[in-house]
Order: sequence, then structure tokens, then C-alpha cells
Amino acid sequence: MSPAPGGSTTTWQQNGGDGQEPITAAAIAAQVGGVLIGDGSVLVQGIAPLDRAGAQHLSFLAHPRYAASFADSAAGVVLVTPAYAEQPGRPTTRIVVEKPIDALVGLLARFHRREPRAEGVHATAVVAPSARLGAGVTLDAHAVVGDDVVLGDGCWIGAGAVVGAGSVLGRDVRLYPNAVVYPFTELGDRVVLHAGAQAGREGFGFVPRPDGVARIPHIGRCVLEHDVELGANSCVDRGSVDDTIIGAGTKIDSLVHIAHNVRVGRFCFFASQVGVAGSARIGDGVQLGGQVGVGGHLTVGARAQLGGQAGVIGDVPAGETWSGYPARPHKEQLRAQAALARLVKLIRPLERLVRGDSA
Amino acid sequence: MSPAPGGSTTTWQQNGGDGQEPITAAAIAAQVGGVLIGDGSVLVQGIAPLDRAGAQHLSFLAHPRYAASFADSAAGVVLVTPAYAEQPGRPTTRIVVEKPIDALVGLLARFHRREPRAEGVHATAVVAPSARLGAGVTLDAHAVVGDDVVLGDGCWIGAGAVVGAGSVLGRDVRLYPNAVVYPFTELGDRVVLHAGAQAGREGFGFVPRPDGVARIPHIGRCVLEHDVELGANSCVDRGSVDDTIIGAGTKIDSLVHIAHNVRVGRFCFFASQVGVAGSARIGDGVQLGGQVGVGGHLTVGARAQLGGQAGVIGDVPAGETWSGYPARPHKEQLRAQAALARLVKLIRPLERLVRGDSA
Amino acid sequence: MSPAPGGSTTTWQQNGGDGQEPITAAAIAAQVGGVLIGDGSVLVQGIAPLDRAGAQHLSFLAHPRYAASFADSAAGVVLVTPAYAEQPGRPTTRIVVEKPIDALVGLLARFHRREPRAEGVHATAVVAPSARLGAGVTLDAHAVVGDDVVLGDGCWIGAGAVVGAGSVLGRDVRLYPNAVVYPFTELGDRVVLHAGAQAGREGFGFVPRPDGVARIPHIGRCVLEHDVELGANSCVDRGSVDDTIIGAGTKIDSLVHIAHNVRVGRFCFFASQVGVAGSARIGDGVQLGGQVGVGGHLTVGARAQLGGQAGVIGDVPAGETWSGYPARPHKEQLRAQAALARLVKLIRPLERLVRGDSA
Repeated sequence: MSPAPGGSTTTWQQNGGDGQEPITAAAIAAQVGGVLIGDGSVLVQGIAPLDRAGAQHLSFLAHPRYAASFADSAAGVVLVTPAYAEQPGRPTTRIVVEKPIDALVGLLARFHRREPRAEGVHATAVVAPSARLGAGVTLDAHAVVGDDVVLGDGCWIGAGAVVGAGSVLGRDVRLYPNAVVYPFTELGDRVVLHAGAQAGREGFGFVPRPDGVARIPHIGRCVLEHDVELGANSCVDRGSVDDTIIGAGTKIDSLVHIAHNVRVGRFCFFASQVGVAGSARIGDGVQLGGQVGVGGHLTVGARAQLGGQAGVIGDVPAGETWSGYPARPHKEQLRAQAALARLVKLIRPLERLVRGDSA
Repeated sequence: MSPAPGGSTTTWQQNGGDGQEPITAAAIAAQVGGVLIGDGSVLVQGIAPLDRAGAQHLSFLAHPRYAASFADSAAGVVLVTPAYAEQPGRPTTRIVVEKPIDALVGLLARFHRREPRAEGVHATAVVAPSARLGAGVTLDAHAVVGDDVVLGDGCWIGAGAVVGAGSVLGRDVRLYPNAVVYPFTELGDRVVLHAGAQAGREGFGFVPRPDGVARIPHIGRCVLEHDVELGANSCVDRGSVDDTIIGAGTKIDSLVHIAHNVRVGRFCFFASQVGVAGSARIGDGVQLGGQVGVGGHLTVGARAQLGGQAGVIGDVPAGETWSGYPARPHKEQLRAQAALARLVKLIRPLERLVRGDSA
Repeated sequence: MSPAPGGSTTTWQQNGGDGQEPITAAAIAAQVGGVLIGDGSVLVQGIAPLDRAGAQHLSFLAHPRYAASFADSAAGVVLVTPAYAEQPGRPTTRIVVEKPIDALVGLLARFHRREPRAEGVHATAVVAPSARLGAGVTLDAHAVVGDDVVLGDGCWIGAGAVVGAGSVLGRDVRLYPNAVVYPFTELGDRVVLHAGAQAGREGFGFVPRPDGVARIPHIGRCVLEHDVELGANSCVDRGSVDDTIIGAGTKIDSLVHIAHNVRVGRFCFFASQVGVAGSARIGDGVQLGGQVGVGGHLTVGARAQLGGQAGVIGDVPAGETWSGYPARPHKEQLRAQAALARLVKLIRPLERLVRGDSA
């Protein structure tokens, strides 16, 4: 097996794909609608980046950053933009396409080994008699489906995943192993919850009591609209009074927390470890970098972009790019950081100036 | 079902409660001890915020921020403070109370649909013969209870949750699905672990060895005192030599990490994604905002408050409010940020001044 | 049980170890190769820090920070460095060693109560017929092992843990309860995944489509080399085209996310809640503090150290210590923070200076 023995130096192994049937460069060109340059009979058995590809690999040049790697690459075939069709470089068999990444994505599917899927309900799964399962549903080992749950056609509930009572899942929902859907949660079609991800927990709301605090009962819903994806161990709480809603097509990476009453628009991207506090409003098409935090009751306008680790403590206007803590327009952030760096050399003479030493 | 079809514009659906029996405004006023203004026969079927409430909803006005929404709200009944009793606005049926949020909490319970709870031990649960289960314990499907575990009366162990050998749980402890209690952990009465939460892992401690590093065996305990709540996927490590202890009544949100040997006082609130490094001391009543990080061996004094994303690299005095990185008193933080913003316009002339250009 | 009743003041209980057989100070000195000072017949029943130790406890003095605690400690026996052999203080029985922490680690094992381990495959575990299990493998209750999985000798798969199809695990791999290994993942010998940890998820990669976005099929591998440890609820994604590899001996704490195509070197330490974005390169021996974020496609050189919450937005040279956001050399960071603090008092006079008021 590949993990290197403890005593040797680091060698980062590679493996361009999962070893499916080989395919010729000419067939690839035909499939992606590209123009073939060079030897169309070259056989491709996998995909790899330029600097690690061998003669049996397809690679790609999608960014000037990798032009140097292209010059030296041992790749058998390379997908390139028209700008690089005549670029000097070792790979002589090239397929020219407008968008190499898009072409690559179509090809990746060909080299992608899918997880085997069993049919039907595993003998160890536990399904409440009142649950309603659509056609073609798969329940893997130890999956649990509670009272009155509705699973749409084609749902696939992974090993150890739990769907709480009264939850309604659309068609082709995929729960990976040990994901948890709390009771009374609503998931649209093709929603994906990765391993350990959770939706529908009662949010973090308490009121003071003479003897401590009391939990606020949560009656708001938790809705993940169509095509929402929730990364591994990410958590979306249900609403307290209002609802928590993640808009259709929004993709959320791992270890993200979305608090109660938050509304997230459509087609957003949240990188890993993002946190959105209670009752925040995130518009359509918003992109949040890794570890971004959005404060409670704030609004992030549509298509706004927030750099990694940004700490949002006020509303962010639509379409703007903000960063840093406290988050502000990225250009302001850069100017402030630059001014601070320049201040370091000035601070002592400035103190003298203000004291009048230099007067 | 509610998740909108992919092609339409975003429509944030709503649902004010779970559809329990309707109740009149007069009955609500009586229940909360409020003064009824308007038509006491109005029927309430759910609860919703002012801007989304309809004629069948109870709503509430608890903050001047929402006064404008109140003016236009279609809510059938609104809980208001005495200050808003005569406030102009559409809702004519009002219930006047000192604390609308407190009144609301009592009412939420009425509209709250509880998760169904089965009695006893599910056929698929696995319980060690040496485990001792109190009266009224529920073990859901695939729950696992290890050797010598003690479960107090009324404990509810969710589907797939695991209680490791030798752990002792008090009364009415609730483990949500797939939560994990490592061996030899102690949980007080009414402790809650949400889905995927964990307590008692051996902490992150290693010592160098000629051939790498060796793990430090952890013999300290992990104790969650009475009424502690741990959010989804949060993790509390056991101590190495000392113990890790979370004080009674402390509430911790999701995706939080508490490292080994940490002592957390009573009645603290930690928002999601907080991290507390090893051997830190957190006093009673401390409030940590989302994504706050507290460095190892530091002390945060009682009732201190830390703003979201604060990075604590030194001790924080009791009762103070700090923020930012590095964390400092919040007012200093604001002054520093303001000074930096003003510096941006000054930096060039200041450089000229120091160089003597303007002399 | 120890959790204090709700009404009393906070009392942090303690328990120095798990109550194994007592041992004399003389026997401890012999075991650690130390020089005994004082009464060798003192019996030790547990281990505790200086300020909480009693007469039955062994304690240790490893840092000048704790010299004051040493003076007052009630510990029966203390491990000290030669520098403290003659230090004034209550503990009169001392064992002098060069490295008290190292000595302690060896002793901790003696007081460490191990989790009981069952033999063989639990009746409720589900194992695919095509899976190959080595000698001495333990599968706990409800563990799931997929098609064609290979488990090396001595693997221990905890309750509810899931090993996806085609994954290959080396010898003595330990999966704690509810850990998830996605299909086609490779784990070296002695790899540890704590509860809820995950390896091999397809990373967060999408391409735009006319009707939204499409997931990029991931064909890269996810490899955790020998002796890698992954903390509770941490997540490592598989590569898209390239591989994700965690180098041998690297230890990762809880709630960490490693994105697709990342390469982490050997013998690194990542504290909890670290996030490493896609295609980053982390050299050997790198230490990342808690909540550090490393941006995509960046390089952190070998043996670099990053302070807690550092936000890395550019390459970090080998061997350097950086901190803050944006991350920069720690000394520069300190100078910038100091200059900013001093600026606060200067900003108003400086504005006057620049305006010419003081001219």
C-alpha cells in the first residue's frame, strides 16, 4: 500500500484517476468538441496535473500560473485554450478547447469510480411503520427513519444516518453515513448531507430564569431547498419563531454552522468553517471564504464576496468584496494594512514631532 | 413540499409554528398575565415575526428596531411592552406585558411539537450486561452502552449514540443521535449532547521521541456538570493530568472545541465555533462570541465578554468586554480601528513630514 | 457523583488518575531513572498538578511558572529538574530527572485505565463478504465495512464507524465511534480517527452550468500515511485531480478541515479548528495554532510556525514564525500592533499637523 514507511523521506505519491478503461486522444477530442493537435492515437489511462503527469495521463493548462509546468510536463495529452495551442512545451499532443476546466469535468466523470449502491432497505436499517418511502430508495446498514418521515423517490440514506420524525425529504436526497436530520426538517430534491452533517437542531436560544436559564422552544422550520449541499459535520439549526432557510442551489462546505432564523439565498458558496449567527440575512449568490463569521441580525447583500476569516459586524452591501476584521471593503482593508506597515517606521519620529522634540 | 423549484425566484416560505390547536387572544392574555387591548376572540394558530405574520398569527414587538414592521404588520395579535400599547399600527389586538420575549417563550412551548419518545430499550440497541440503567431510560435504535456504564433515571440515548465504558450519566441526560461519550466520562443531571457532540476524548498531547512523537496517556477526567448543553459536533477533551470540567448551567453551541485540562465556570455561554486551548481557565458567567479563540494556560475572568472572533493571547480581567485580535478592551479596539482608518489619509503627508519634505 | 448540585458555588473537583495500584516513591525513581531525595517509602496512588495534589499524589515541576505552586504544594512526591532539587518548598520527597515531563509520560501509562477491547466481530457489525480482515481485528457494535475493504492486522473499528467500499487500512488502525472513512481512502499503519472524524469526502469543487452548478467528480486519492492522527470531527477531503496526502506522523486536533489536493508533510501539528484550503502545500514539521486558516494554492515552508488564528494569504517561508491577519512575521506583527496602540494617542495631533493647524 502507498503510505510511506516511517523512516523514508516524504514522497508524495500520486495516482491519476481510478484506473478505468483507456481512451485515445482522438476520442477525447471528439467527446469534448476540441481540436486535436498531434498524435490522436495516444492512450490515456488517467488524469493528472502537469507537474506529475506521465505519458499515460491527460493533463490541462487552464491558467498562466502553470505555463512553466507545461513546458516540462511529461503528460501524454494536454487540454489547452487556443492561446496555448502553439505554446512551446514537451506535450505535443494537445486538445484545444475554449474552457479546459469544463472539458476536464466531463472527462473526470469517465475516470470516476462510483461508490457501489445497494438496492432497497438493508436488513439492519430501522424504519418506522408510519414512514413513507418512495420508489428506488436505498437505506444502508443501521440507517434509521423515524415516524411519519417522507422519503422521495431515489433517496439514498447512508450507513448510520438518522432521519428524525416528521421530516420530509424530496427526490434523490443523499445522506452520507452518520448524517443526522432532526425531526420536522424539510429537505428539497437532490439535497446532499455529507457525513456527520446535521440539519434541524433547535438553535442556541435561552432566556434567564431565577435558577439559571431556560431553553426557548423552537417552532420555526429548517428548510434546505433543492440542490443544497451541506459539507461534512456542518450544522444548520431550525428557527426559533421564524424559519431557517437555505436557498436552492447553495453549496456549503465542511464544519460550517448556520444558526437559527438565518436566511441564505440561492446559489451561494460558503467555504469551510464559516459561521453565520442568528437571524442574519444572506442574499443570493453570496460567496463566503473559509472561517468567515457573520454577526447576528446582519444583512449580506446579493453577490457580495467575503474574504477568508472576514469578521462581519455590520451590513455588507450587495455586490461588494469585503475582508478582514472588522470586515470592510477589501480595497480599504488593503490600504489600512499598507498604512499600518508604513506606520511602523514612522511611529517614533511622529511621537517626537507631536511632543515637539523636533520643533 | 415547500422547497421552491429550481427555476423560480427566491421566495422564503414561512410557517408560524407546527399547527397545534388554535387559542384565542383572550386566553393568551390570561396565560401570560397581560392586559388585552382589542378583540379577545381573535384566534391564533401559530407564531410569526411581525413582517411575516398573518391574521392567524401571534407576533411580538420587543425592540424599537422592529417598530416600523409593527406599523405594517398583518399579525392578528401582538405582544407588546407598555411603551407600545398605544403605538400606531395595523395590529389592533394587543397584549401588553412587561417582557414580551418571556411571555412568548411560555407560549412557544404550546406550539412546540415534541419529538416522539419511545419507551425502553430498542431491540437494536446494544447494552453491556454490566451497565446499570435507571428507571424510565430510553435507548433508541442502535444506541450502544458500554461496560459498567451508569445511566441515571430518565436518560434518553438517541439513535446511534455511544456511551463508552465506565461513564456515569446523571438523571435525564439527553444524547442526540450519533453523539459519543468516550469511556470514563462524567455527565451531571440534565446534560444535553447534540448530534455528533463528543465528550471525553483524550486531548492533543504528545512528547517527542527519537522516532517521532508519543501520545501522552490522559488520566484526567472529563466532567460536564448539571445542565450543561453541548451543541452539535462540539468536542470536550478529558484532562491529561488535571481534569477538564464544564461548570453547571453552561451552554455551548455547535462546533466548539474545549481542550484538555480546561476549567469552564458556571452559567457561561459559548457561541458556535469557539476554541479554548489547553489548561485555560474560564470564570463563571463568561460569554464568548462565535469563533472566539482562547490561548492555552490563559485566564478569562468571571462575567467577561468576548466579541466574535476575538483572539485571546493574554489574561482577560473579570467583567470586561474585549474584542479583536489580539484581544483587548473593546473600547481600545474601537479606538485603534478608528485611528487606523484615519491614518490611511494621513500616511503619505506624514511620511513627507518625517522626511522633512514639508519643512 | 461529582457534578455539583445546581445551587452550590463552583467547586472544581479533581481526581489524580484512575485509581490503579499504589507505588512507592523509590519504585518510581527506579522506573524513571531519577535520583530520589527524601522518603522513598511514600505511597503514590495518583498524579495531580502541584496546586491540587495531596499526600497520595505524584506531581511535577517542569516550568519556572509553577515554582510558586511548588513552594506550597501538598504533593507527596514531585518530579523535578536538577535546578529545582534544592528549591525551598513543602514537598520533601523529590525525584530528580532531566526531563520531568518525559518521566511523567512513562508513569501516566501506569495510571491510565485502558478502554476495554472486545475480540473479533460484534454480532451487529455489518461486513461485506468481499472485505478482507487481518488477524486480531476488532469490530465493535454496528460498525460497517464495505465492499472490497482491506483491514490490516489489529485494526479496531469502533461502534457505528463506517469504512466505505474499496478503502485500504494498514495495521493497527483505530477508528473511534462514528468515524467515517469514505470509499477508496487509504490509511497507513497506526492511523487514528477520533469520533466523528472523516477522511475521503469528495472536496468542494463545482463548475458553473446554465442551470446552476455541477459538482466536479473527484478522482484524486485521500491518503493518510503512517501514524497520522485525526481529531474528533475533523475532515480530510480527497483530491479532485491531484491527491490529498497527510504525511506520516502528522497529528491533527479536532474540528480541522483539510481541503482537496492539499499536501501536508510529515510530523506536523495542527491545533483544533485549523482550515487548509484547496491545493495548499504544507511542509514537514509545520505547526499551526488553533483556528489558523491557510488560503488555497499557498505554500507553508517546512518547520514554519503559525500563531493561533493566523490568516495566511501568501506563502510562508520555511522555518519562520508568523501570526495575525494578514499573517506576517511574528515580530513585524508585534511591531505593527504596538505602533497602532501608540497611534491612538497621536492621531488627533497628527491630523492637526497635516492640516497645518499647528504650523
